Amino acid sequence: MNHEEILQSVIKCNNSKIVLLVMDGVGDIRNRDYHYKTPLEYAKTPNLDKLTSESVVGRMIPVSMGITPGSGPGHLGLFGYDPMDVTIGRGVLEAVGLGLHLQDGDVAARCNFATMNDGLICDRRAGRIPTEKTVELCNILKSIKEIDGVEIIIEPGKGHRFVTIFRSKDRKIDSLINDTDPQVEGKAPLEANGQNDASIFLASVVNKFIKRGFELLSAYPSTNAFLTRGFSKKPKLPSMREKYCLESAAIAAYPMYRGIASLLGMKLLAAPDSIEGLFETYLENKSKYDFFFIHIKGTDQAGEDGDFEAKVNCIEKVDSALPILLRSRPDVIAVTADHSTPCSMHSHSFHPVPLLVNGEFSGKDDAVCFHENACNVGGLGFFESKYLMTLLLANGKRLNKFGA
Amino acid sequence: MNHEEILQSVIKCNNSKIVLLVMDGVGDIRNRDYHYKTPLEYAKTPNLDKLTSESVVGRMIPVSMGITPGSGPGHLGLFGYDPMDVTIGRGVLEAVGLGLHLQDGDVAARCNFATMNDGLICDRRAGRIPTEKTVELCNILKSIKEIDGVEIIIEPGKGHRFVTIFRSKDRKIDSLINDTDPQVEGKAPLEANGQNDASIFLASVVNKFIKRGFELLSAYPSTNAFLTRGFSKKPKLPSMREKYCLESAAIAAYPMYRGIASLLGMKLLAAPDSIEGLFETYLENKSKYDFFFIHIKGTDQAGEDGDFEAKVNCIEKVDSALPILLRSRPDVIAVTADHSTPCSMHSHSFHPVPLLVNGEFSGKDDAVCFHENACNVGGLGFFESKYLMTLLLANGKRLNKFGA
Repeated sequence: MNHEEILQSVIKCNNSKIVLLVMDGVGDIRNRDYHYKTPLEYAKTPNLDKLTSESVVGRMIPVSMGITPGSGPGHLGLFGYDPMDVTIGRGVLEAVGLGLHLQDGDVAARCNFATMNDGLICDRRAGRIPTEKTVELCNILKSIKEIDGVEIIIEPGKGHRFVTIFRSKDRKIDSLINDTDPQVEGKAPLEANGQNDASIFLASVVNKFIKRGFELLSAYPSTNAFLTRGFSKKPKLPSMREKYCLESAAIAAYPMYRGIASLLGMKLLAAPDSIEGLFETYLENKSKYDFFFIHIKGTDQAGEDGDFEAKVNCIEKVDSALPILLRSRPDVIAVTADHSTPCSMHSHSFHPVPLLVNGEFSGKDDAVCFHENACNVGGLGFFESKYLMTLLLANGKRLNKFGA
Repeated sequence: MNHEEILQSVIKCNNSKIVLLVMDGVGDIRNRDYHYKTPLEYAKTPNLDKLTSESVVGRMIPVSMGITPGSGPGHLGLFGYDPMDVTIGRGVLEAVGLGLHLQDGDVAARCNFATMNDGLICDRRAGRIPTEKTVELCNILKSIKEIDGVEIIIEPGKGHRFVTIFRSKDRKIDSLINDTDPQVEGKAPLEANGQNDASIFLASVVNKFIKRGFELLSAYPSTNAFLTRGFSKKPKLPSMREKYCLESAAIAAYPMYRGIASLLGMKLLAAPDSIEGLFETYLENKSKYDFFFIHIKGTDQAGEDGDFEAKVNCIEKVDSALPILLRSRPDVIAVTADHSTPCSMHSHSFHPVPLLVNGEFSGKDDAVCFHENACNVGGLGFFESKYLMTLLLANGKRLNKFGA
């Protein structure tokens, strides 16, 4: 038996409530410009500190030692779907994040408007046109409804981005198709190529779609092209209900995280812009679900921007709002990240993330502050994120004993 | 190569002595009613503290993160038999625990006397009759010596429990048979059903055994039935000698732990009721064996009873007796648990267990007390119990270098 099989053999249902608060990318490394502290060490967080003093802490390795995860693998791990085995394509993520319902067999691609000159891409993001402009351009592209029997579904996203779904009733299509984005400016868009019969057929459809699309866009010189990436199909994953006997809900504002949550069968709840609003959504829905995934984007954004103070500020905002969440305390609460995003790296990183688990049976260790270095010596040790859900279910008394 | 293959490739024999002192269920979580201490933190343990200050400590995960082990998986892990791969059925455990010698092919079931009224079970434990009464009733059942060529062997256990072994010389029998215990009172005992030819045959024997047994018991209305559970065969496991080149002995009073030890080929030594007695048995036998498994039950019992002070008391008794064990110090001594049994949970739990390893080459870290939170920051980190035996063999200089 492996871990998953043991877990499946011991799961039971009960009424315990579990909250997983993900401060995206909050993990960091000590920064010489800020007294050699990490943002979590630097931030004033009286509420998190109090919670920590009643909790057990540790560090999690999102995928595997030294591996920097994208948001997909990072979150899959947190939800207990082994990111080494399960992959979600970028096109699918973007599509479900926009609220599109993917059917089995659909192929989704992430697209973005670009500027082309003499057949060469001179701006891969078309000057980062605003969402409204993208909506207009998508309406033009929507006149292409079908090519060779394959239905074309277009949905505008944020900024210069949109999603295209290819749906075929009669003929099998597959997603083994390269990006047409040449990755650097000054080059022509690449031709789409497939790798098996079903993807070779779809690649020919994609190439015709691009050709007809560019003709339609030729009247708009600064947005006269688009690039396609991340061709993918919806993975076959058990839902959180099937896997854990949990009625789950996501309180996440950003499309990608909503997308991942919806692929796992989580109900997508209202996600106001403010952190207070996210926590209030939890309070309003607490009775209806067993598991709440609450996603904070600001910490990752600040890390990507290399903005230490913005990251500190976001952490402090979460701390200030925390009493709202604790007003109706769940049986189990975990605070952690999907990956680290050190400000000094301006990107996701491979560093283990800090973790706090609080509940009647979590136990408590000597940690009194929630930050990376306190978590190094906590009662949970270091372990891979994919085991977190088992630990949370155990804390919620949702697991039977294994063996006699 | 996996861990086991590497281990097997480097094992050598020598004369070092290894003691594994298992304080069953000693791991706990901090308890608000006792100054937020765990029993190990609360107990006065000058001898364990002194030993700790000369030792290296860490924490072990018995089976896998978040998984609560039964006693079987908990101990198998300690002895280096991967509890994810090896399972020992409850019937087998009970049988070997009573000192019965199982032959290959035997099927054992755990049975208990019950009270039946109009065909419905009204007390699943027959009022928890004393052992002497069970002995009498077993003597009555023992008149059933054979059914359809299958030998029936009955052995009374503690309280209302007994074991039945089914032994067949001519025809294959198998243990894929459901419990006949309906689990709730007010229901009739279930019929035994098999899943393959050999177990379908044995199920028919079991049903006949139950029918004839009930007839024999009908003269005793309060103990006129019995329920069967945990049909199982002896697993094929290498002995401790085969696996580790260790002559091993168990000093354990309780049937289940004696049973597990005997399945691994350990010699079962006398196990007096007192902790001093257990340690004296070690002294008396030190020259005859390489490895001693010493089992303390009181810590787990107190945890199951939710009795913090009894747990503290048992820990202090172990501490007081420790100088006896150390009078003739083994080369390597490990102190740990098979799982945690927090008093506040009244049950086994998923929490990592504390571990101490002492020997000339163990090294020592900063820990000066043996408890969960000191072990969080020890020199051994967090690891799965199944690796403990390798560590102990290494400390006993019983492993060659791996690779050139």
